[in-house]
Amino acid sequence: MKLSFKNDYSEGAHPAILEALLQTNLTQQAGYVLDEYSSKAKTLIRERIAAPEAQVYFVSGGTQANLLVLGYVLRPYESIIACESAHITDSETGAIEGTGHKIHIAPSVNGKITVESIRDYATRYTNYPHQVKPRVVYITNATEVGSIYTLSELKALYQCCQDLDLLLYMDGARLAHAMNAEQNDITWEDLARYTDAFYIGGTKNGALIGEAIVFGNPFIGNGFSYYIKQKGALLAKGRLLGLQFLTLFQNDLYNQLGRHANKQMKCIKEAFDAKGVSFLSETCTNQLFPILKNEEVAKLAEDFDFYEWKKVDELHTAIRLITSWATPTENVEALIKALNRL
Amino acid sequence: MKLSFKNDYSEGAHPAILEALLQTNLTQQAGYVLDEYSSKAKTLIRERIAAPEAQVYFVSGGTQANLLVLGYVLRPYESIIACESAHITDSETGAIEGTGHKIHIAPSVNGKITVESIRDYATRYTNYPHQVKPRVVYITNATEVGSIYTLSELKALYQCCQDLDLLLYMDGARLAHAMNAEQNDITWEDLARYTDAFYIGGTKNGALIGEAIVFGNPFIGNGFSYYIKQKGALLAKGRLLGLQFLTLFQNDLYNQLGRHANKQMKCIKEAFDAKGVSFLSETCTNQLFPILKNEEVAKLAEDFDFYEWKKVDELHTAIRLITSWATPTENVEALIKALNRL
Amino acid sequence: MKLSFKNDYSEGAHPAILEALLQTNLTQQAGYVLDEYSSKAKTLIRERIAAPEAQVYFVSGGTQANLLVLGYVLRPYESIIACESAHITDSETGAIEGTGHKIHIAPSVNGKITVESIRDYATRYTNYPHQVKPRVVYITNATEVGSIYTLSELKALYQCCQDLDLLLYMDGARLAHAMNAEQNDITWEDLARYTDAFYIGGTKNGALIGEAIVFGNPFIGNGFSYYIKQKGALLAKGRLLGLQFLTLFQNDLYNQLGRHANKQMKCIKEAFDAKGVSFLSETCTNQLFPILKNEEVAKLAEDFDFYEWKKVDELHTAIRLITSWATPTENVEALIKALNRL
Amino acid sequence: MKLSFKNDYSEGAHPAILEALLQTNLTQQAGYVLDEYSSKAKTLIRERIAAPEAQVYFVSGGTQANLLVLGYVLRPYESIIACESAHITDSETGAIEGTGHKIHIAPSVNGKITVESIRDYATRYTNYPHQVKPRVVYITNATEVGSIYTLSELKALYQCCQDLDLLLYMDGARLAHAMNAEQNDITWEDLARYTDAFYIGGTKNGALIGEAIVFGNPFIGNGFSYYIKQKGALLAKGRLLGLQFLTLFQNDLYNQLGRHANKQMKCIKEAFDAKGVSFLSETCTNQLFPILKNEEVAKLAEDFDFYEWKKVDELHTAIRLITSWATPTENVEALIKALNRL
Repeated sequence: MKLSFKNDYSEGAHPAILEALLQTNLTQQAGYVLDEYSSKAKTLIRERIAAPEAQVYFVSGGTQANLLVLGYVLRPYESIIACESAHITDSETGAIEGTGHKIHIAPSVNGKITVESIRDYATRYTNYPHQVKPRVVYITNATEVGSIYTLSELKALYQCCQDLDLLLYMDGARLAHAMNAEQNDITWEDLARYTDAFYIGGTKNGALIGEAIVFGNPFIGNGFSYYIKQKGALLAKGRLLGLQFLTLFQNDLYNQLGRHANKQMKCIKEAFDAKGVSFLSETCTNQLFPILKNEEVAKLAEDFDFYEWKKVDELHTAIRLITSWATPTENVEALIKALNRL
Repeated sequence: MKLSFKNDYSEGAHPAILEALLQTNLTQQAGYVLDEYSSKAKTLIRERIAAPEAQVYFVSGGTQANLLVLGYVLRPYESIIACESAHITDSETGAIEGTGHKIHIAPSVNGKITVESIRDYATRYTNYPHQVKPRVVYITNATEVGSIYTLSELKALYQCCQDLDLLLYMDGARLAHAMNAEQNDITWEDLARYTDAFYIGGTKNGALIGEAIVFGNPFIGNGFSYYIKQKGALLAKGRLLGLQFLTLFQNDLYNQLGRHANKQMKCIKEAFDAKGVSFLSETCTNQLFPILKNEEVAKLAEDFDFYEWKKVDELHTAIRLITSWATPTENVEALIKALNRL
Repeated sequence: MKLSFKNDYSEGAHPAILEALLQTNLTQQAGYVLDEYSSKAKTLIRERIAAPEAQVYFVSGGTQANLLVLGYVLRPYESIIACESAHITDSETGAIEGTGHKIHIAPSVNGKITVESIRDYATRYTNYPHQVKPRVVYITNATEVGSIYTLSELKALYQCCQDLDLLLYMDGARLAHAMNAEQNDITWEDLARYTDAFYIGGTKNGALIGEAIVFGNPFIGNGFSYYIKQKGALLAKGRLLGLQFLTLFQNDLYNQLGRHANKQMKCIKEAFDAKGVSFLSETCTNQLFPILKNEEVAKLAEDFDFYEWKKVDELHTAIRLITSWATPTENVEALIKALNRL
Repeated sequence: MKLSFKNDYSEGAHPAILEALLQTNLTQQAGYVLDEYSSKAKTLIRERIAAPEAQVYFVSGGTQANLLVLGYVLRPYESIIACESAHITDSETGAIEGTGHKIHIAPSVNGKITVESIRDYATRYTNYPHQVKPRVVYITNATEVGSIYTLSELKALYQCCQDLDLLLYMDGARLAHAMNAEQNDITWEDLARYTDAFYIGGTKNGALIGEAIVFGNPFIGNGFSYYIKQKGALLAKGRLLGLQFLTLFQNDLYNQLGRHANKQMKCIKEAFDAKGVSFLSETCTNQLFPILKNEEVAKLAEDFDFYEWKKVDELHTAIRLITSWATPTENVEALIKALNRL
């Protein structure tokens, strides 16, 4: 059996979550996310981001969160600006276009969108009524290539969006890893302050399923619950979502799990650094994209599971390694040992 | 704290499911329903219905299953025939219309659709190209009012659909209760034989989440996985779905849980019968719709949670009572005692 | 060659329209309904309804107008209430559901919707967020069965909509015939006053194509032009639409043509009345639904073209006869003569 | 009054079309494109392309044709490959995404897509089921920048599509100008042979409105008429479309009008060539994109109407000039004279 560094959702849930499921299992609760665990979890999240007016909704997965938020906030003729490496551009089977909206693809700079490319789209797309109207900027944090936004970058994006009458939406599938990167200088309070909406990823940080969508703005009205139900995303046993976020946001567990994943990857990165290996992107979270010789990749693949991410040239391939809340130190050591044998 | 007879998803999961989650928790598995539990569960289901070619897909909830199946099998201009009491007609926030399709509403006869009303729609909607083209008949079993289809009814519906080039789709949110009703004469093998597609409800029969969509026909092609992903319904930790269905379909647990729920309701029904209470519908599963005086309803509501389903006249109201896999005998006894005190 | 009473779009355009096309043909004009004819036509319409703030848009046909208005004003989870005989319910190939919205079907009383059925839907559909939210009431005037709304009916509907936070939208495919019926007491000014939106039908009153959508309310914003373009309804040569409405709204031509059609039908109706024939609906516009013996229908069909509308019983069928702006008196006389020979 | 070279839809219709409208005006015809003119026009088109099995449909405009064809032939999770300058990518207000489908943007080489970029997308988008499935290649001929495809290019594209299980669809808004360019070596028969579908543009070649969609393949089934109606594109007076195409395809008028527009532009191009002006693209149809000094543009704009297409650098701007079936020689001479005065 190979050890997997393929993704951060290879295991089940953090034990504290299973324990909470066991403890509460036979307690009767209201359905459809009206249970008391969901209610408490929402309060904890609002407190964490210091936004008592924020609206919080729990759904099952990241693509679902994205299509719900974007499908809901946009009028039919409005569009999204996202960068080339963004998850919505080519890893969600056209889910966003499936709701009727165009995605403008901006260049990625180490996985991140720039203020310049946003301004460029916003000024080029003004031929009313023959062109769509850009309305939302989509970013991910941590990004798909393992990098994170700095506070000053986030502020600049938000300011740019405000200037151009755009909304800023952050996909936080790996928010835990971004917020707990050593280089991170964004606080939880900043998330509500400098975005219009974001989601807190649970699936990739120890939950069985679950993402918490947060709207910091009151613009959203009360129609979002209808939309969640209409798109098949309202769980009868919403308690499953609420209880998990309650567990993750009590005692700082959510941050701890993110830190663990990052720490494990840091060890791995140091081992690659020591070997002088170069990387496809500059990372500081739980993902790493080392560029190896093809025969090294083949050798490593004998004992470990991971994605071959990109052919770099005839002789070299970038692979993707991921650690998670669950990655034990012995797996990290086994990988490092194998690396050192290459 | 009131005892709830409000629905069959008030509790968490059957203990065997939690136990399976605990046992497998740290085992690494492939994501996106490619894990080994899902694979085994699909095999068990195919065996159960004796349809080795059937395609099985796991999704999170009933509305999601319905919109996926109907959105996928229909061309844009095709429509669905369903009866008035059908879940898709007024309890899913227009999820089906949200995929672009009209639902024709046929009369309900004790919660069931009739061959006559199907023929009627199929023959009236023929003004090409000004009218939609009926293409799917949607039924639920057990129905929303607690009744079930007989084998001869199911065969007649299927034959009618075959004659009229219609597909027959069964919503099995409470299939466990239908299949384990004392009056039921439909076998699991019949489900694959006399429908084109159906889903096996997990959420209302002991799972945390989960419905198993089954296509008995090969017409479906391999595009459905794309569609599941596009609509945000593909879970990263698909293992959560697969493991639950594996547990439910081992050792006949799924049937046992359905039987338990039905048995508890049978006791309740007998108590109402003994009091001479009449019902809104003829039921034989885990739902009951007794018609009580308004003051009796108020009295009962002091200690029990349930839906007031329908005002019958100025003085009487039909309530809905539901039992589940989790309903303990003491709750049933408490309810009967309260009833006898009325 | 049979004489056709099948519909009011069997001929081309009123000669004044063709003359205007000839006169202006080689004048260069801006595209996309920014030409000067469209601009003038909009002004004439705003003056006619005494609503200087009203927004007017020209599109090609009735189904297009309906799907544009309803698709634009509704949020995804909102629905429409319309009566059973309404054009959108079963003569537009699910165009409205195709934009994602449910239509609630209310009973038809001589082709008209009632305040009671609107209240009924609005109060029944309140199970947030499991049910769609009714938001628009759709009516047609003249109706599909040839009847018209009275001013007091219209006022009552509008008041009911205001009370229930609903919008009132009038499909005016045959508005010319309604406004020029002898029994009509609604003025053009009333249309803007007692609806939120309506359209003025051109296709069935002498235009080659064209309907004028009018929003009396400012709520609509400036996004509708985007939506028209997105749905493929923005004509490059919008001048074709503008010039026709300019011609129709100069010198009262629009009303004259409606009156002509009604007058021709009145003669026909008197002939049927004289024969003691009964009708499927009470009409006062350019449609008539006489109930004839099947052999009489067959006899009439030898020389005339019309729809067999509805089998009334084994021996009788209701047919639909329609006159138009183009129906010459000799055709009316030929029909009456044939009728008297029956 | 300025002379307009802004587009090829500034005037009304070719006089022969108005004459035909006058001649047939009071003849009664069946509605919904079932009239005899439409029928004859379809026959003429089938004969012209030597494809007796081809299906022909008449609709109002180009965006409408595109969204109908693409929305109809694609399954929800399938996508389109088009080049950067393609009309559907940024001049149709997201009409295609509005039907739920992603457009992959390939590089433009003088307005044309290449086999290499198609292969690139088809091989990169294979991560089932996380990525959309490319299914249609969209091209325009003549292109948006005035160039045309050669027969060998078209054959190579079609062969590439066949190899990769893709459909090839040609947007022929300016097909008249492509087919009648001096450099053109594609025959009308080739259009049916080397595409799966295309449309013949009428609006930009002398019709008031109208495009003829042609499916050369039988795969399309009989559902397209439903879809046309559902999307609001079925004209009641379809005779307006049929009669125009009948006129255009009798006596070779369609080709004559295209040749006229091209010839007028050729004179203009020669004048620019003589002045040593360079162009934004290499053209051979009725469009020209000369690059002028900003002050020359301003000077020209005093007497002529045209688009400023693209800022080339601080001092230079490319403008777009268009001629049409209606452009008189005196306008061409006036423009050349003005040019020579610059």
